[in-house]
Amino acid sequence: MFEEAESDPSLTDTAAKQLEQRLRTRLLRAQYEHLDKQDRALLILVGGIDGAGKGDTINLLNDWLDPRHIRTMAFPPPTAEDLAYPPTYRFWHHIPPKGEIGIMFGSGYAPLVLEASKKRPDLDLLESMIMTARRYEADLVSNDVQVIKLWFHLSKQAQRDRTKRLLANPSTAWKVGPLDHKVHKHFERLCQGAQRVIEATDADHSPWIIIPAADDNLRNIRTAQAVLHAFEKRTIRVPPLHDPSKLPALTPKRNPLDTVDYKKTIDKNEYETQILDLQNQLAEIVRDAAFKKLALMLVFEGQDAAGKGGAIRRITHALDARQFEIMATSAPKAYELARPYLWRFWRNVPHLGRISIFDRSWYGRVLVERVEKLITPAKYRRAYSEINNFELQLCGSNILVLKFWLTITPDEQLKRFKEREASAFKQFKITDDDWRNRRKRVAYHSAAGDMLKLTHTESAPWFVVPSNDKRHARVTVLKHIIETLEKTLKRQEQSGHENDSKHRKKHGKK
Amino acid sequence: MFEEAESDPSLTDTAAKQLEQRLRTRLLRAQYEHLDKQDRALLILVGGIDGAGKGDTINLLNDWLDPRHIRTMAFPPPTAEDLAYPPTYRFWHHIPPKGEIGIMFGSGYAPLVLEASKKRPDLDLLESMIMTARRYEADLVSNDVQVIKLWFHLSKQAQRDRTKRLLANPSTAWKVGPLDHKVHKHFERLCQGAQRVIEATDADHSPWIIIPAADDNLRNIRTAQAVLHAFEKRTIRVPPLHDPSKLPALTPKRNPLDTVDYKKTIDKNEYETQILDLQNQLAEIVRDAAFKKLALMLVFEGQDAAGKGGAIRRITHALDARQFEIMATSAPKAYELARPYLWRFWRNVPHLGRISIFDRSWYGRVLVERVEKLITPAKYRRAYSEINNFELQLCGSNILVLKFWLTITPDEQLKRFKEREASAFKQFKITDDDWRNRRKRVAYHSAAGDMLKLTHTESAPWFVVPSNDKRHARVTVLKHIIETLEKTLKRQEQSGHENDSKHRKKHGKK
Repeated sequence: MFEEAESDPSLTDTAAKQLEQRLRTRLLRAQYEHLDKQDRALLILVGGIDGAGKGDTINLLNDWLDPRHIRTMAFPPPTAEDLAYPPTYRFWHHIPPKGEIGIMFGSGYAPLVLEASKKRPDLDLLESMIMTARRYEADLVSNDVQVIKLWFHLSKQAQRDRTKRLLANPSTAWKVGPLDHKVHKHFERLCQGAQRVIEATDADHSPWIIIPAADDNLRNIRTAQAVLHAFEKRTIRVPPLHDPSKLPALTPKRNPLDTVDYKKTIDKNEYETQILDLQNQLAEIVRDAAFKKLALMLVFEGQDAAGKGGAIRRITHALDARQFEIMATSAPKAYELARPYLWRFWRNVPHLGRISIFDRSWYGRVLVERVEKLITPAKYRRAYSEINNFELQLCGSNILVLKFWLTITPDEQLKRFKEREASAFKQFKITDDDWRNRRKRVAYHSAAGDMLKLTHTESAPWFVVPSNDKRHARVTVLKHIIETLEKTLKRQEQSGHENDSKHRKKHGKK
Repeated sequence: MFEEAESDPSLTDTAAKQLEQRLRTRLLRAQYEHLDKQDRALLILVGGIDGAGKGDTINLLNDWLDPRHIRTMAFPPPTAEDLAYPPTYRFWHHIPPKGEIGIMFGSGYAPLVLEASKKRPDLDLLESMIMTARRYEADLVSNDVQVIKLWFHLSKQAQRDRTKRLLANPSTAWKVGPLDHKVHKHFERLCQGAQRVIEATDADHSPWIIIPAADDNLRNIRTAQAVLHAFEKRTIRVPPLHDPSKLPALTPKRNPLDTVDYKKTIDKNEYETQILDLQNQLAEIVRDAAFKKLALMLVFEGQDAAGKGGAIRRITHALDARQFEIMATSAPKAYELARPYLWRFWRNVPHLGRISIFDRSWYGRVLVERVEKLITPAKYRRAYSEINNFELQLCGSNILVLKFWLTITPDEQLKRFKEREASAFKQFKITDDDWRNRRKRVAYHSAAGDMLKLTHTESAPWFVVPSNDKRHARVTVLKHIIETLEKTLKRQEQSGHENDSKHRKKHGKK
């Protein structure tokens, strides 16, 4: 794989000059076409052996392209705060919008290569890091972010020569860091590790491109060619559907909503005693020191007028306003549409010790966007697995995701719509949209059924709440939150430090 | 000021119920009008004596209004990271967009009230905190963010009774924190401190409203009335222009650009030696440990084709791609237009140890937005002072702002435009806009002159760079950066710990 690069090929100044003229013109033209079309973003991950000139190459791209539409991002080793989130969290934040280019310096692959280069790598850990990277890139590409990955490589001798050359000149000596020396010492092992990781993460939709880096001329030309090639690729093949064995277990084929028992009710007095008691319990749990090691995402979905708002209020009344945020999910704005649909939700993942409550959520992708035909079937079909992956990552970082589907019968909905229309201060809750959605209730019912089957996972199961009786629904929701929190905190206490160290390792920290 | 509130007035349940019905309807109607008009944002700061029911009132607002257009934000005591930024930094990040409502719990006034309540308050510090708060609010209001400030108050006895009542009930006991007890002990002093701060920061454009908080009914009704009143206010009086004595010293009345000497040039060989040497010096400075206590914002403005991009590249070639970001400022997007124009720049203030380079900047407000008549004269006139305040705050937090105006003669510009049109890979740099701007060069010249006079401050002076000779300009820019950095780092070293402690105090930390 590195044969060519390790032969340290080079290009004469004259040859490079000639190629450069044509390349720069074509690159610029291609960049402007990319900007005009706005059909995808281009993400360039820049990795490689330390001391291979990655920084210089990034400067070159900013020189040769219009830098106003390039965002260069650096990813230093993760901080303690970064480590409290899933490994891909900080990368998600910086996805460029369609039409633009993002260059990620420090491709995120360093921890993988380091692990793979160890004398005794932790193979399970390595495998899991590789899977995370593959999933992350597949999900980006499926959502209109084109990914290319550059690996800068050169021979051991050339790496040492380059380091020496840089050190000899006071104006470049700063480019040599302690890592460059280390690289030389462990060159063979690093190469083997890199090769292993590159092979495992190379894909048609997010290819690795090896750039021979010993000679500045050749390195520049090859980089420019790789970027040009990416621009000129008309279609990006969507990644093959993910391994079926990794898909969530299906619940029985019938729509789970068909068997809901709507008869349960609760008496008013009983309700008032219970709700206060439950709020009290919840207040205690989230104030406990143990909760600081957990974050909570509560997701509320359900038909219009199913009582999401009321259920949420019964929760928030038990909480300190400083500890939670309510996210009301509405149609995405232009700058959100320019990114993968999960982008805006990644940005609202709560810190440890905090609670985010979603009044509707990312499930809009497989509900309203599906039913209203805002996206193609291929896109919403992929979304089930993308969402499962999102939630799996959250769960792996102690971010608990509880999902509620509040369901009411069509008759009950009609009754509530009419009540709302009659109430001076509930009128705002009922719009033409609600009536239109109601007319499409069969389609929504079946979309909700598929969603409940396909995204009901071990890490983030759905909880269906019959809500014809509001009081019963509210009590049920609170009970479920409390029970799950108690179970999770107990489990967390038991595993304790063990998990902690695993988690850090996963991010490549020792 | 607190007489009424300390008499602990109350409202019967019946009276409250009656008022509530009408209020809720009017509130919702007003909120929807606010949402439809999109002409301003509403920011509600919630302060007051601890144990006065602030949290409950925020829940109430979320109940009575449509919570999907409310963002409740909590501001716990600042973290070490917060303290590295100007005091208003974190508040700026959360300004709601036009049409929406932001509720800030922990109004930012706690540090002021605490200082004012001390036995021996630091009067200079207090005065400076008050001025910062006043300026911040005035700048918001001038930029279409309506501000109201609620102060929840009750008598000493009622505060104690409320605490006891909450403690007696297990479902509300969590609402009582250690602070509530402390408040009781120092009640009189806290009230005096609060009164002093409230008087000093009460203004027509951002009024304080005292809410009697002993009785839940009255507290709820008064809060709702205050918010309703804010919605129904048709016009918000723009704050009086700021004290002239605080305005920056004016340079002579003539346009500073009229006296620029364009004759200086530098020989090519000399240039190449110098530029390498300067880049080398810069590389060393920003890699030094001392630089970690400083952040650098480089602002490049100037006519089209004056050489901003080239000058920036000569700087970035000396830098590690991981240490800096280039912000290319173009026309604001819809979500940016929905906030004060400085909002997007506040979001890009660099961390300590980092460098942000602005290729055009917030000065667009007084250049293109003025010349192209995108805003009223009143708005751009206020902008000079708003910008000075912005930069003064940055400077006060060790964020160095260096501003360059690259200037060329009309002939030189014409020559460069033609060269660009002739070059295959520079064509993108020349558009119809550039030719149009050139035709308006007299207006731009005079706008630039006013800008150079009115925003040339001690904390962030302008540096005008004659750029007919590109080489000379690049060398001059680099020299100026190096000299200023050296001077600043030296000064910083001298004052050292002294400043550190002052800075922390300013944020209300001991």
